Amino acid sequence: MSYFSNIGKIQFEGKGSDNPFAFKHYNPEQVILGKTMEEHLRFAVAYWHTFNANGTDPFGSATMFREWDKLDGLDRAKARVEANFEFMDKLNIPFYCFHDVDIAPEGATLQETNKNLDVIVGLLKENMKTSGKKLLWNTVNMFSHPRFVHGAGTTCNADVYAYAGAQLKKGLEVGKELGAENYVFWGGREGYETLLNTDMGFELDNLARLYEMALAYAKEIGFDAQFLIEPKPKEPTKHQYDFDAATTISFLRKYNLHNDFKLNLEANHATLAGHTFEHEIRTAAINGMLGSLDANQGDLLLGWDTDEFPTDLYSTTLTMYEVLKAGGIGRGGVNFDAKVRRASFEADDLFLGHIAGMDSFAWGLKAAAKLTEEKILDSIVDNRYRTFKEGIGADIVSGKATLASLEQYALQNNPIRLESGRQERIRLQLSEVIFSV
Amino acid sequence: MSYFSNIGKIQFEGKGSDNPFAFKHYNPEQVILGKTMEEHLRFAVAYWHTFNANGTDPFGSATMFREWDKLDGLDRAKARVEANFEFMDKLNIPFYCFHDVDIAPEGATLQETNKNLDVIVGLLKENMKTSGKKLLWNTVNMFSHPRFVHGAGTTCNADVYAYAGAQLKKGLEVGKELGAENYVFWGGREGYETLLNTDMGFELDNLARLYEMALAYAKEIGFDAQFLIEPKPKEPTKHQYDFDAATTISFLRKYNLHNDFKLNLEANHATLAGHTFEHEIRTAAINGMLGSLDANQGDLLLGWDTDEFPTDLYSTTLTMYEVLKAGGIGRGGVNFDAKVRRASFEADDLFLGHIAGMDSFAWGLKAAAKLTEEKILDSIVDNRYRTFKEGIGADIVSGKATLASLEQYALQNNPIRLESGRQERIRLQLSEVIFSV
Amino acid sequence: MSYFSNIGKIQFEGKGSDNPFAFKHYNPEQVILGKTMEEHLRFAVAYWHTFNANGTDPFGSATMFREWDKLDGLDRAKARVEANFEFMDKLNIPFYCFHDVDIAPEGATLQETNKNLDVIVGLLKENMKTSGKKLLWNTVNMFSHPRFVHGAGTTCNADVYAYAGAQLKKGLEVGKELGAENYVFWGGREGYETLLNTDMGFELDNLARLYEMALAYAKEIGFDAQFLIEPKPKEPTKHQYDFDAATTISFLRKYNLHNDFKLNLEANHATLAGHTFEHEIRTAAINGMLGSLDANQGDLLLGWDTDEFPTDLYSTTLTMYEVLKAGGIGRGGVNFDAKVRRASFEADDLFLGHIAGMDSFAWGLKAAAKLTEEKILDSIVDNRYRTFKEGIGADIVSGKATLASLEQYALQNNPIRLESGRQERIRLQLSEVIFSV
Amino acid sequence: MSYFSNIGKIQFEGKGSDNPFAFKHYNPEQVILGKTMEEHLRFAVAYWHTFNANGTDPFGSATMFREWDKLDGLDRAKARVEANFEFMDKLNIPFYCFHDVDIAPEGATLQETNKNLDVIVGLLKENMKTSGKKLLWNTVNMFSHPRFVHGAGTTCNADVYAYAGAQLKKGLEVGKELGAENYVFWGGREGYETLLNTDMGFELDNLARLYEMALAYAKEIGFDAQFLIEPKPKEPTKHQYDFDAATTISFLRKYNLHNDFKLNLEANHATLAGHTFEHEIRTAAINGMLGSLDANQGDLLLGWDTDEFPTDLYSTTLTMYEVLKAGGIGRGGVNFDAKVRRASFEADDLFLGHIAGMDSFAWGLKAAAKLTEEKILDSIVDNRYRTFKEGIGADIVSGKATLASLEQYALQNNPIRLESGRQERIRLQLSEVIFSV
Repeated sequence: MSYFSNIGKIQFEGKGSDNPFAFKHYNPEQVILGKTMEEHLRFAVAYWHTFNANGTDPFGSATMFREWDKLDGLDRAKARVEANFEFMDKLNIPFYCFHDVDIAPEGATLQETNKNLDVIVGLLKENMKTSGKKLLWNTVNMFSHPRFVHGAGTTCNADVYAYAGAQLKKGLEVGKELGAENYVFWGGREGYETLLNTDMGFELDNLARLYEMALAYAKEIGFDAQFLIEPKPKEPTKHQYDFDAATTISFLRKYNLHNDFKLNLEANHATLAGHTFEHEIRTAAINGMLGSLDANQGDLLLGWDTDEFPTDLYSTTLTMYEVLKAGGIGRGGVNFDAKVRRASFEADDLFLGHIAGMDSFAWGLKAAAKLTEEKILDSIVDNRYRTFKEGIGADIVSGKATLASLEQYALQNNPIRLESGRQERIRLQLSEVIFSV
Repeated sequence: MSYFSNIGKIQFEGKGSDNPFAFKHYNPEQVILGKTMEEHLRFAVAYWHTFNANGTDPFGSATMFREWDKLDGLDRAKARVEANFEFMDKLNIPFYCFHDVDIAPEGATLQETNKNLDVIVGLLKENMKTSGKKLLWNTVNMFSHPRFVHGAGTTCNADVYAYAGAQLKKGLEVGKELGAENYVFWGGREGYETLLNTDMGFELDNLARLYEMALAYAKEIGFDAQFLIEPKPKEPTKHQYDFDAATTISFLRKYNLHNDFKLNLEANHATLAGHTFEHEIRTAAINGMLGSLDANQGDLLLGWDTDEFPTDLYSTTLTMYEVLKAGGIGRGGVNFDAKVRRASFEADDLFLGHIAGMDSFAWGLKAAAKLTEEKILDSIVDNRYRTFKEGIGADIVSGKATLASLEQYALQNNPIRLESGRQERIRLQLSEVIFSV
Repeated sequence: MSYFSNIGKIQFEGKGSDNPFAFKHYNPEQVILGKTMEEHLRFAVAYWHTFNANGTDPFGSATMFREWDKLDGLDRAKARVEANFEFMDKLNIPFYCFHDVDIAPEGATLQETNKNLDVIVGLLKENMKTSGKKLLWNTVNMFSHPRFVHGAGTTCNADVYAYAGAQLKKGLEVGKELGAENYVFWGGREGYETLLNTDMGFELDNLARLYEMALAYAKEIGFDAQFLIEPKPKEPTKHQYDFDAATTISFLRKYNLHNDFKLNLEANHATLAGHTFEHEIRTAAINGMLGSLDANQGDLLLGWDTDEFPTDLYSTTLTMYEVLKAGGIGRGGVNFDAKVRRASFEADDLFLGHIAGMDSFAWGLKAAAKLTEEKILDSIVDNRYRTFKEGIGADIVSGKATLASLEQYALQNNPIRLESGRQERIRLQLSEVIFSV
Repeated sequence: MSYFSNIGKIQFEGKGSDNPFAFKHYNPEQVILGKTMEEHLRFAVAYWHTFNANGTDPFGSATMFREWDKLDGLDRAKARVEANFEFMDKLNIPFYCFHDVDIAPEGATLQETNKNLDVIVGLLKENMKTSGKKLLWNTVNMFSHPRFVHGAGTTCNADVYAYAGAQLKKGLEVGKELGAENYVFWGGREGYETLLNTDMGFELDNLARLYEMALAYAKEIGFDAQFLIEPKPKEPTKHQYDFDAATTISFLRKYNLHNDFKLNLEANHATLAGHTFEHEIRTAAINGMLGSLDANQGDLLLGWDTDEFPTDLYSTTLTMYEVLKAGGIGRGGVNFDAKVRRASFEADDLFLGHIAGMDSFAWGLKAAAKLTEEKILDSIVDNRYRTFKEGIGADIVSGKATLASLEQYALQNNPIRLESGRQERIRLQLSEVIFSV
């Protein structure tokens, strides 16, 4: 059965095309800096936004009614699996990602929930074998169910913590079964609603303990995925512990977990924390913790997570520039943690949204490659810092300098000559590069 | 000579008083939880806001003209010293804080600048001896002068770095000379204007090097102050590296500096970063890095640092509650990094602003002591987390639990019983406590 | 049947009480400035938050399960009616407010929906007669149903507009039937998701047309409620046309509707628009358009509508101060458009939340009355503007002055003497007043 | 004498050029939709940012030292005039804008200030005659001097109000003398620091009175410029009365001034108020009040006015699209109210900044023209609203519909068919259009 019968395979038609259902930029086989676009970008479908979301928002009910919504329970879950593989195939997307509850309905008991999962995991595995599609990452949803109202790894209730542990155990088993490249932790309720009733130190200790148990169990069962934590500053909770990249790294270092985890960074989470996406990527990269990307964009005039499909070429270009600078995305990928607007409720919009995102990222990759190859920014940076390559500058970098030696130098070095940062010029250059590829 | 001749000593008159120039709450000798108010609060005058600021803002020129502004150069600097000690005396404030450039004018050369400093430092020392007043902390201003336009410890220019090193060396010497309890680093230009021309990793490495040199030199000269870093997310730069407490801690841990530094936290910096002040204090405390406080308040509907005198009792109460919970402020203090509004340009306003801040903090301390003594929040917290005291909860905390043991427990534990977080009730209680002391 | 059988009538016990289920400040019969507290405050229960909300948020499902949730359809609707009157009775709240969809389930057709409404409206009327409780306002929900995805009065689809008109007609009839004091319009989807596909001018013209039809129909059926528009800047849409008080007034003036509408102002909507609540009230008042209040509070560090119960005494005091200054709230009231936190899921929390809000508003009223009676702010203001009472100032106010006469005056008037705004002092006074009542 | 001797005339070299000191897009004579680029864009230099600004920010002193800074007083003012005309000539910019205090130093008295102004105005007039350059608008600065600390037209002090009137009178005379196309009011201190000491209603009445006097005086002297008000929500004051376009329009309508004023809109002010620039332009246009544009851009992650040169092509395109839709900018223009970054302190940067802005706006104009000519957005909009062209939709628009007729229609019209808003697709199209011109 086809779930998107009126849509054929999306083809690369190039820049001239005005076919909305074709790629103008994403050409998977095109080689850029020695790798194909497909290898660079490692696109993934986010199961939840694409197959579970229905347009509900805090002030309105569902606007989206899909083929599979005519079914119920496990039947609906199975239909979604089929829709997923048809969708990936038609868009030529190699990876997908999910939370446990996205793929199979929760049962009345943990036993039943796990049984449902087993059924669907079997079906996914089969489809993966046939299609060659892969699981970029899986995770478990420990934030939607009311039991997690006070948190999961940071709950105030030991029974809930135990449940979370059990759910996590199953998540790791599912990841192993499906050969997930990564395993993600997003702590949607790991934070607090008010500090007034919260023992933050205790909660963070407990969270670290859960991570340690997860590492131990993954090792025990031979699940060798890359472990990722996804920062977000707030929403749903008032404060989330994994506020941003730096906060998460601080936590990992404190508990000596920083060699076992990398980060899954999301554009809209970055901006909610007051950062550009490229800042977060750079922060992760210089700490050796760039893991994977959740690609979307927020509306900077709004204060919540809008999870829009990424279409701002300045952002996709700088994102891919950071990725190239960091040596690529490794075992991670570019997961479209993006949802079509509530008003884009037609099934076609799922395709148009992904095409917009994929073309914008492919475009950004081409622009980033040009920035890289022609050393447009690198040459500016090299020139700016050149005084650290010799003399007193080299002494500073090598660790030879002391405050006394610096003072001695400074006392006889007057005046200092500075150069402009040239930001205005660089910004126009950036537009020129983006709109020339 | 008196600089505030129309104002006498500000006395504690208690709650009934309607004398604007009296304390209604700050009674330095009043004992609370075993210490005097003075010992708890360790108030400090911020030299720059009180003796240097003149009401200039980005859209307007000076509105404040003080007695000492009739003088110039070193004469003005000396007059400010006298004004400072008169001011501290009249308000009964035991500490003060300054940047090097606040106390003495910069000269044409570093030599001259240092000479000016020496003159004023001598005068300060003398006055300190006479008055018994102390230096809570000093720092050097490495952000105002145009040479620091691209940063100081994170500049792209080695000559500037060397100058910063020299200036820092002098700052440490001054701190030692005056017996400063703490030495503060606020990186007003340690950040970037645009990532496009910035080598963030290199800049952070350099910053760490500067800190190491500072530690080494302080040790060399026997300056045993507590070293503090003051986080701020942005302003003046687009991004500041010491974004918030967690980011700064992450940096310190990465460079293995976390045992040598604590944090100087500021309320308005916290809110600019998207956090409450109490969150930042808690974060520092659970990392063992609570150093000192810059007391002020921001306007949460504005996006810049307004540095208002702290008058919100919810905030002063929760601030002091965190301090009490952390065992006190130690060698740190409560420094009024606050400025009277541009429209509060009369000399009297300097007193009224400090009285507002001191009374609000004293009030907050009394309320916090009540919260602490009567275990109003503690009992809520203890009860909330009680399931971690035995059974599976105790196993989790002790490290005995594994994902497998948690699963085994969870499979037979159904349903889970949860309790309300009771936030609404607690908030009303908080008002009741504040307005009952 | 009782829905809150473990809770008795909430009594006023005064400040000494530590009974969580008693009022410490709200004493309905206490006379303040010539009116009882009950008359001043005119509290209302918001039906939707209290009887329909279940703790769902964008990342989590229901945490609240009430007695009436054991029923379905009209039976559940009837149970809610009973619960509402029991709740109002136990809390001694005189008014309530609802959207059509809060009280009765939508049917498959408009006919059926209206029939359901009729059943419940009959039941409400009966209960109102028995209990003496009144309807502060009603409204129709033209934002939750998917048909309103592109707006209601500003939809791009004429059929939807027609449906909205029909729904509005019924809403006016219901209001008349129940003797509503006010009728409210909140345009949850009256705005746009992107300007790129939107004809804003046309949409606003259409919205004005709908208001005109509503006025005409209300007149036709003799429904003489006060008509109110409720501003909100964003959420759910990216931009809402009734952004804030000033924007709404601008719209009303343009379409010559400003004599027929007043404003229903909400605290959290004010802050989302970048204003204090008192600013919005003042804006409405000086335009003669203060209608009613939706009492709640937001978290200023979060960017979405949190609709918390109001517990900040600074805000409740200044809110009631503006109300007193405007001569009272008239036919409007103080409606708790506030929801208990998702973690405050017990039925008791509904009471604790309302008690927190009611006591905080009663406290605020007492403090505002003291500010008013003792002319604490008024005397400051009177003194500040005194130069406009005579001479050139009086000429300006009377309209006698011209630029030429002002120039003539200014040329010989030098220097000008200014006085401090004394903000710091006033802020401490405000704390003192709140404390003292 | 030349002030920019190392820079020649900036020429249009077209897209291929990599000469930083050439235009790649701005070709003044190129005809687009029947007008030259120069006629469409009417670029203006902002005197203050270009000739007065020196890189000072709240945390740092001047970084920019220009040729004219070697002089003082009137000599410096004269040098700036010469620099202005050289700059306009080299960049081929036809207009400029200024505040009174930008062009001539304030004297000790109003008399002296006016005398200084007369000298410079004479010099400007001479240079304008020779060069053919024009004054887009002038204004008077009633916000920087300490006398305006509590406002100018909204001050609490009648003497200050009189001074403001006198200054405004001179401003109108200067505008007439120089043939200004527009006269601008930006109320930098027309607002409040705290509502606690403010009589907002009285202040707004007084502001309206000042506008009326200005209109009367302009008429008296035959100064027929377009009068413009420039909205800004905050900064420097906590709240500015002309918050945004809608607020300003509301004010103007209330005082029946809406036929005598239009708006001068600024991009960064729009975003500080929570709006896109295109939203503000649309709002003005549908109220018949689009006057002129202050072109710049803000950093949406920062909360203050950064006044960056506009380089975001999405924004310049949508800005020019709104302008074209409104029938052009009329007597207004595109004034670069933008400053080079503090770190872009070299004189060359003034050119690079303007080139970046001019090329970005020219590029935006070309893209906007393509959007317009090919009806890319218009056809989407036309199709979306087509149901209002006949039947019930036409009845609604014509005013024939009533709630009763709408109900009658709705009762038999079921179900309603809706269409997707297609936002994702449109956003990718926008990138494609920008790229293709």
